[in-house]
Amino acid sequence: MSESLAAKAAALDAADELAGARGLFALDDAVYLDGNSLGALPAHVPDRIADVVRRQWGQLRIRSWTEGDWWTAPERIGDRIAPLVGAAPGQIVVGDSTSVNVFKAVVGAVRLTADPARTDVLVDATTFPTDGYIAESAARMTGRRIVPVAPGELAGALGPATAAVLLNHVDYRSGRLHDLPSLTAAVHEAGALAVWDLCHSAGALPVGLDAHGVDLAVGCTYKYLNGGPGAPAYLYVAHRHQAAFDTPLPGWTSHRDPFAMTPGYAAADGAVRGRVGTPDILSMLALEAALDVWDGVSVDTVRAKSLALTDFFLECVAAYVPAGAVTSLTPAAHAERGSQVALSCADAPRVMDELIARGVIGDLRRPDVLRFGFTPLYVGFADAERAARVLGEVLSEVRAEMPAEVAAERP
Amino acid sequence: MSESLAAKAAALDAADELAGARGLFALDDAVYLDGNSLGALPAHVPDRIADVVRRQWGQLRIRSWTEGDWWTAPERIGDRIAPLVGAAPGQIVVGDSTSVNVFKAVVGAVRLTADPARTDVLVDATTFPTDGYIAESAARMTGRRIVPVAPGELAGALGPATAAVLLNHVDYRSGRLHDLPSLTAAVHEAGALAVWDLCHSAGALPVGLDAHGVDLAVGCTYKYLNGGPGAPAYLYVAHRHQAAFDTPLPGWTSHRDPFAMTPGYAAADGAVRGRVGTPDILSMLALEAALDVWDGVSVDTVRAKSLALTDFFLECVAAYVPAGAVTSLTPAAHAERGSQVALSCADAPRVMDELIARGVIGDLRRPDVLRFGFTPLYVGFADAERAARVLGEVLSEVRAEMPAEVAAERP
Repeated sequence: MSESLAAKAAALDAADELAGARGLFALDDAVYLDGNSLGALPAHVPDRIADVVRRQWGQLRIRSWTEGDWWTAPERIGDRIAPLVGAAPGQIVVGDSTSVNVFKAVVGAVRLTADPARTDVLVDATTFPTDGYIAESAARMTGRRIVPVAPGELAGALGPATAAVLLNHVDYRSGRLHDLPSLTAAVHEAGALAVWDLCHSAGALPVGLDAHGVDLAVGCTYKYLNGGPGAPAYLYVAHRHQAAFDTPLPGWTSHRDPFAMTPGYAAADGAVRGRVGTPDILSMLALEAALDVWDGVSVDTVRAKSLALTDFFLECVAAYVPAGAVTSLTPAAHAERGSQVALSCADAPRVMDELIARGVIGDLRRPDVLRFGFTPLYVGFADAERAARVLGEVLSEVRAEMPAEVAAERP
Repeated sequence: MSESLAAKAAALDAADELAGARGLFALDDAVYLDGNSLGALPAHVPDRIADVVRRQWGQLRIRSWTEGDWWTAPERIGDRIAPLVGAAPGQIVVGDSTSVNVFKAVVGAVRLTADPARTDVLVDATTFPTDGYIAESAARMTGRRIVPVAPGELAGALGPATAAVLLNHVDYRSGRLHDLPSLTAAVHEAGALAVWDLCHSAGALPVGLDAHGVDLAVGCTYKYLNGGPGAPAYLYVAHRHQAAFDTPLPGWTSHRDPFAMTPGYAAADGAVRGRVGTPDILSMLALEAALDVWDGVSVDTVRAKSLALTDFFLECVAAYVPAGAVTSLTPAAHAERGSQVALSCADAPRVMDELIARGVIGDLRRPDVLRFGFTPLYVGFADAERAARVLGEVLSEVRAEMPAEVAAERP
């Protein structure tokens, strides 16, 4: 069995039109399946950062603000991200953390609906926690209330009291892909606005923000966009909402004429209105450099490879892993799958430690979920086969040592 | 005259116990008087950033979050800043922009007063604009109103309706130093809370946050702290307020147990409660490296040199600049002076362009203010003499070309 899957992996890698992209990244012999947490380093980024530090900061100093390309970085880099998420230029700004952008987006959405009868902000009940925490603060500060709802039950929860809905495109834990087009349409039918969190989808699959009429969106850039640890996040405000977008964080760089330094605030037009403070240049220009790996890459091609990779990984898991040792939390249907596979198992922390010790890098979500993220730009089919094979070895050993009553609890 | 001032500069430089610090920075032959906008690059920082990028991100990847020193960077670096602003450990976290921290601080202060009868948030009428814009949003979102007040008239404006007061320690435009101890005491006497913006004082003069009972404070790190362009800002919440500090941005990294990823928010104890999203590691660790230049440096020594530098610069300006060509906006009294000198003059944009072309780097605040920032760690007395001398030359030339009626308008 192992030989045939290895051969299949080799054939799939040989036919992979993205195989060449792996060479753009600094990687080693490990199988890195944690790009859904921290994307790998694009190999050219260190030199670009060194230039930003040594020349732009160290030599040009303040002139880089006035003569260089620092000041406009948030909107310029936003326009680099735009095609990856299906947005026309002029709708995305980069800056701040995802959490801060969730705050801008949810407050902005509530204010855009501008209807006090719309008292509810619906939030994905299985959301990555920060979205829920921040949305609750946004609701509290705009006189609304939070209603947690499973995305599958959204249709029944929407109504005339709904102001805004905050959803994750892909669930961070299970890897489930939610149906952005139909859910956005349902939200609109209820007269509410849809805010999408793209952290686990941008760079892994087509998003189609403009095509599907999304109102506002946020996302991070350190997962499939490889922008670096804690790299700045982004905010999308659809063109049609920009004139009325009323930010809760009207920092000076979102002013119509920031250097006039007038005491009265006057919001800039366009995506710039989503800016807040002075842009964090080192991190921002590292991200800009990292986005070069997307030149000439089609997101559709990335998505096709992502599905082929997760299909093949699941096939290998079925072949290598002792029956019943793991349960997949990730939907089998392509339409419901992001770019990661989440497996629950007994003794998961120990299993992940062993995997990492043997060169298969995934991560753990307490208490019992192993996450394996497949970044199509640098993960290949042989990586998927090896990861499943090592997982099978580890699970066989762990189960052999497990007291009989614990092993029996697993299905 | 020129010779005697040059000789005096040489003598002052020879006696300067901070003179050696200049060698810690990447500088050239220009006189860099814009450290109050963007601090110069500490020479060791590029190698430290290269290590963060190539090894910590590129090789260790996700392990740097779990095994390295990334996760605790916000509070660890906060504790590095603490002694520079007179704070005991455990009260400062680094992250987000100054604007975002102003929002946390003002909302936090209003909620700490917890008295609906206290309807007013008083804000320095000459504040750097972002503080005013953000404070207005904070007031709006907590059901309060903004009252602009000149710091000199604060005593008369305080009263039972005052919830919080947001003040700048040093005015960004004039360089005026406000009396933090007495203003904080007056705010407390009125039963309100004092929020201080330290952007233009931290790293230039003693602040004494703890000693003077400041409630909350914010500051940037890219001026006198040399953290790099747009480097992360910080938030100080005094120990006595931490348990009740109710942040408007309860991001997941401020949770008591962030990796439990529970749907309900439970705030961490201590300064960590001021964190929001995933920390921006590249910028944050650049800042951490930059703070090494403070090892063994006393802020009192820095302050003494800062005052000597600005005194001497004003002496040279008086000697070199044609009578009446400039007016100083910076108070002569030491107790009212920060670490910059602001001069207004005719044709200021052209004058600053000429200064920069001749190697004297200051900046312009529209319409007519030339700002010269004196960073004691790397600016010397010969620099001050040269800057004033070149300013005198430029102003003589500009005035010679000026139509008589324009020249006559100047005092």
